[in-house]
Amino acid sequence: MTNQTADHTDVRAANLAVALGFLRANSPCSRAAIAAGTGLNKATVTSIVGDLIDRRLVRETQQTQNHVGRPATLLVLDGSAYAAIGMEISARGLTAIAYDSAGGQLLRWHRTGPGADAGPAKAVAALATLARRAIAAVHASGRDVLGVTVGVPGLVNRDGVVVLAAGLGWRDLELRKDLVAALGRPAFPVLVENDANLGALAEHRYGPYAGSANLILLSGETGVGAGVICDGRPLRGNLGYVGEIGHLRIRADGPLCGCGRHGCLEAVAGIPAILARLDASESPDTDPQARTDELVRRAEAGETATIDVLTEVGTLLGQSVCGLANILNPEFVILGGSYAALGRWLVPAVEKELIDGTLAPEAGGCQVVASTFGHDATAIGAVARSLDQLDSGRLPVVRPG
Amino acid sequence: MTNQTADHTDVRAANLAVALGFLRANSPCSRAAIAAGTGLNKATVTSIVGDLIDRRLVRETQQTQNHVGRPATLLVLDGSAYAAIGMEISARGLTAIAYDSAGGQLLRWHRTGPGADAGPAKAVAALATLARRAIAAVHASGRDVLGVTVGVPGLVNRDGVVVLAAGLGWRDLELRKDLVAALGRPAFPVLVENDANLGALAEHRYGPYAGSANLILLSGETGVGAGVICDGRPLRGNLGYVGEIGHLRIRADGPLCGCGRHGCLEAVAGIPAILARLDASESPDTDPQARTDELVRRAEAGETATIDVLTEVGTLLGQSVCGLANILNPEFVILGGSYAALGRWLVPAVEKELIDGTLAPEAGGCQVVASTFGHDATAIGAVARSLDQLDSGRLPVVRPG
Repeated sequence: MTNQTADHTDVRAANLAVALGFLRANSPCSRAAIAAGTGLNKATVTSIVGDLIDRRLVRETQQTQNHVGRPATLLVLDGSAYAAIGMEISARGLTAIAYDSAGGQLLRWHRTGPGADAGPAKAVAALATLARRAIAAVHASGRDVLGVTVGVPGLVNRDGVVVLAAGLGWRDLELRKDLVAALGRPAFPVLVENDANLGALAEHRYGPYAGSANLILLSGETGVGAGVICDGRPLRGNLGYVGEIGHLRIRADGPLCGCGRHGCLEAVAGIPAILARLDASESPDTDPQARTDELVRRAEAGETATIDVLTEVGTLLGQSVCGLANILNPEFVILGGSYAALGRWLVPAVEKELIDGTLAPEAGGCQVVASTFGHDATAIGAVARSLDQLDSGRLPVVRPG
Repeated sequence: MTNQTADHTDVRAANLAVALGFLRANSPCSRAAIAAGTGLNKATVTSIVGDLIDRRLVRETQQTQNHVGRPATLLVLDGSAYAAIGMEISARGLTAIAYDSAGGQLLRWHRTGPGADAGPAKAVAALATLARRAIAAVHASGRDVLGVTVGVPGLVNRDGVVVLAAGLGWRDLELRKDLVAALGRPAFPVLVENDANLGALAEHRYGPYAGSANLILLSGETGVGAGVICDGRPLRGNLGYVGEIGHLRIRADGPLCGCGRHGCLEAVAGIPAILARLDASESPDTDPQARTDELVRRAEAGETATIDVLTEVGTLLGQSVCGLANILNPEFVILGGSYAALGRWLVPAVEKELIDGTLAPEAGGCQVVASTFGHDATAIGAVARSLDQLDSGRLPVVRPG
């Protein structure tokens, strides 16, 4: 009998996920439209929609649709009961973003610090403090929290251990475990993932290229990483380390990288490497955001030295993008993080390398574009990751009405 | 009503696939074991197994199992009614392999030629002739053909068009369409895929590392390519061109490649490049297999010049494997094709580069091994691809008994 229940539950969860996903993409729509669009039969759709309404994930609108026959009540996503929290920690600081379950933004906070020199214990404490405030804000809005996901620039294994995050000075930090403890073992899931993987998820769910099943987001911050969506799914790999392009060797005789090797992509085309070449006179601990903004201003003013360096960096970046295009055949390579703001000058140089260096004609259909999310991609992807439990059909329990 | 049918059919197809897959991995086993192992309820399993027996894909054995209570009849796969054909065309010649639906090998043929200079029309005709013979042999054994899949060393798009196969001298050849016509528009599916993708599928289904969800097969023939299994699935990418590592730039000042670029992996570490460096005196159109065998003999005899070249090639190959490991985090990188026979000398050099050049500690858990399938991997993977329609639940219609 337990087998029978498991079987039934799995099919129902799959059907719930299909119906909710269809509604997310086609809201507002009728029960009949869900049935027609998903292949589920009308009785199943009626039952599933009843469940979703009971859980306050879907609501009926006053609108009706009247093609032929009886007018049909239209359904929309209901964001009044639940929200998901996404966070990022990077050399730039901390970010927290929350969306309700209908995709409406509830909060978007950014805090500077703690710096890499603060040590992991202080960083975890600062993350937990910001998470608690976000959780309190969600609760104050009358919603329950579906989950908290944190993006980290480094190698994160499947247990949420940060194996290596050079830009933060972390190694073998049990971040997920520490955060769960700091948040008092909450009932909702707490997840830790690689920043670029989450950024790619944000682009895949909410970005202008969301229709594509094959896209790669390049994060351009202290480090350089890639998040990969291939054949419609985020790739993870054996230990969860997919997309570590920052240490592809671009120039065997190149400068020393933070990892101890020479000529890694990060060392020749990372944001600190660009800044170091252009304004060596300034102090290295000046706010990197302010320095990137200054770079954009100089390039916009037509300063030749700046534009030349950006073109050269684009060429080096393009050599790595060729590797990605030959190996993964993406439709879009999206320049994210600080690269996004520099896209106007980087993209043409990357594209030129890509066409020259990819075996497939016209780079296998690959286009290079700048992210529209910039520095928020990771936190938005973290929200999406927390919302994923809904779309995989694992609904919250019904609360007393 | 059509929606209801579609819905029901999809669930049943998924359940059939799950039951058949479980039986493939756990044969012989009882209906109760299938239910316990898959989470399907016993009534569903009984109905599905009935279907599979009617279609002669499963049969009951005389054996019974008697833990507690009534003895249970054991089931095994039945290979008596269907077979799948896998083929390969390469610079080495043509291969055809057929397995019955229980995984038993029915035939394994190799033909030399047609060479690249024969032109695509002759090659298609030779492929069709060999396919017709394999189909006739399957029919003579009393079985129906589930499908024919052909592996090609080159870029193959999702419609079975060979966009580029430099080693065969092909460009924009509509191979699938041409083969379907040459075989008289058969009722079974005819598919064309990239050789390395099929090789990876063979390793994933039948190889010694089949338990791994993250493996990469490197094909080492005229060209060098990679087939990628990531997170348990074969990757395809935007146009189907995943794994084209042969043209990663290894040495900017390297030799001219057939693609017109300089220093591509193929040009420095492909089998012809290895042979050219070691026995330049021999004619380039001598059988590459015989020349590789000679290379193995020389290395086994301890000839220093040969071992030095193989070590150097392993180092160059290792630089590309680093790229794969950083980007895809595989558990196994399998040296296939002619590289397999040279594995004893290549593997240590590849491993050294891999450890040095991968950001993740211990190369993210990646191991380098030699394929046990050698030159048969592509055709075996092609068989697996044709058998896949069974495991995806699309069963043949019931034949008159």
